[in-house]
Amino acid sequence: MPVITVEGPKTDDLSKKRDFVEKVTEAASEFYSLPEESIIILMKENRQDNVSVGGKLLTDKK
Amino acid sequence: MPVITVEGPKTDDLSKKRDFVEKVTEAASEFYSLPEESIIILMKENRQDNVSVGGKLLTDKK
Amino acid sequence: MPVITVEGPKTDDLSKKRDFVEKVTEAASEFYSLPEESIIILMKENRQDNVSVGGKLLTDKK
Amino acid sequence: MPVITVEGPKTDDLSKKRDFVEKVTEAASEFYSLPEESIIILMKENRQDNVSVGGKLLTDKK
Amino acid sequence: MPVITVEGPKTDDLSKKRDFVEKVTEAASEFYSLPEESIIILMKENRQDNVSVGGKLLTDKK
Amino acid sequence: MPVITVEGPKTDDLSKKRDFVEKVTEAASEFYSLPEESIIILMKENRQDNVSVGGKLLTDKK
Repeated sequence: MPVITVEGPKTDDLSKKRDFVEKVTEAASEFYSLPEESIIILMKENRQDNVSVGGKLLTDKK
Repeated sequence: MPVITVEGPKTDDLSKKRDFVEKVTEAASEFYSLPEESIIILMKENRQDNVSVGGKLLTDKK
Repeated sequence: MPVITVEGPKTDDLSKKRDFVEKVTEAASEFYSLPEESIIILMKENRQDNVSVGGKLLTDKK
Repeated sequence: MPVITVEGPKTDDLSKKRDFVEKVTEAASEFYSLPEESIIILMKENRQDNVSVGGKLLTDKK
Repeated sequence: MPVITVEGPKTDDLSKKRDFVEKVTEAASEFYSLPEESIIILMKENRQDNVSVGGKLLTDKK
Repeated sequence: MPVITVEGPKTDDLSKKRDFVEKVTEAASEFYSLPEESIIILMKENRQDNVSVGGKLLTDKK
């Protein structure tokens, strides 16, 4: 613990993922004064037709 | 915010999805007295062999 | 299953809660063609200082 | 309710899944003094490149 | 990782909690063939008026 | 969307929270190439007796 779950769109850019988890881990370690090694991040990919904002599916917002 | 996560079976019927997110968004907007635009819904699809009820996998309950 | 988790602000109005869970349960039952009895809703209350939108805590957005 | 969400790696061994959900359901039923039939388990599979521990993607930890 | 989130009612019995997390950790370690030390369990307590089953709040089901 | 849920210990330091959500929002906006305004963070506080690592409650690890 801490465990950070990130719900977002599909992403395949590994180098951007590496950069992202590094920054969030660093920020969380500082925030909680806990070692980076204890911080887990789960990135969840969501299809556009499975997400709605304001009652509209993201697929319909294009 | 608010954020509503819906864990359910696989679904592909887009028109039913549109209807569902519309109704839930409307109900949440009313409940929280918040604008519909602020309401996010994430629909999560679960395979039958990854869900159990009463200690039995749904695949084994057919 | 299905399980619906609703992340929102604090709410104490029981009659509004009853109305909300009824509507969402009905919509989910219809969407998934599953009996209402199988639908679980978990309402989660979040303090304003524990939620941020656009990098700002909700407490700072007043 | 209760609802148990298990975030882990990909798993295909059905017999191990059956054994796992049986044991966790039994433990939860005992813990909460609730009937096994009321206990739902959702198993979530995560790709190695979508999980980080200590700021490193699991794919990079091999 | 793995991370197991348990949504249930309020519980204060520490010895039952110890027993529960021990059993679930053991079952998860076996299931995923991963060391017990890597397994995290988060127990979430839900008030009865914030949970509904079949469209009814648990408080109304007594 | 994106929605980031952070499961951690209790925290009351508002200035550290502001700093944390700012950094994570910035990192997520960059990662997903989405506007900061679309990024929601939910911070969840967990009591030590409701979290276990390696089968032991955090309260028992002191």
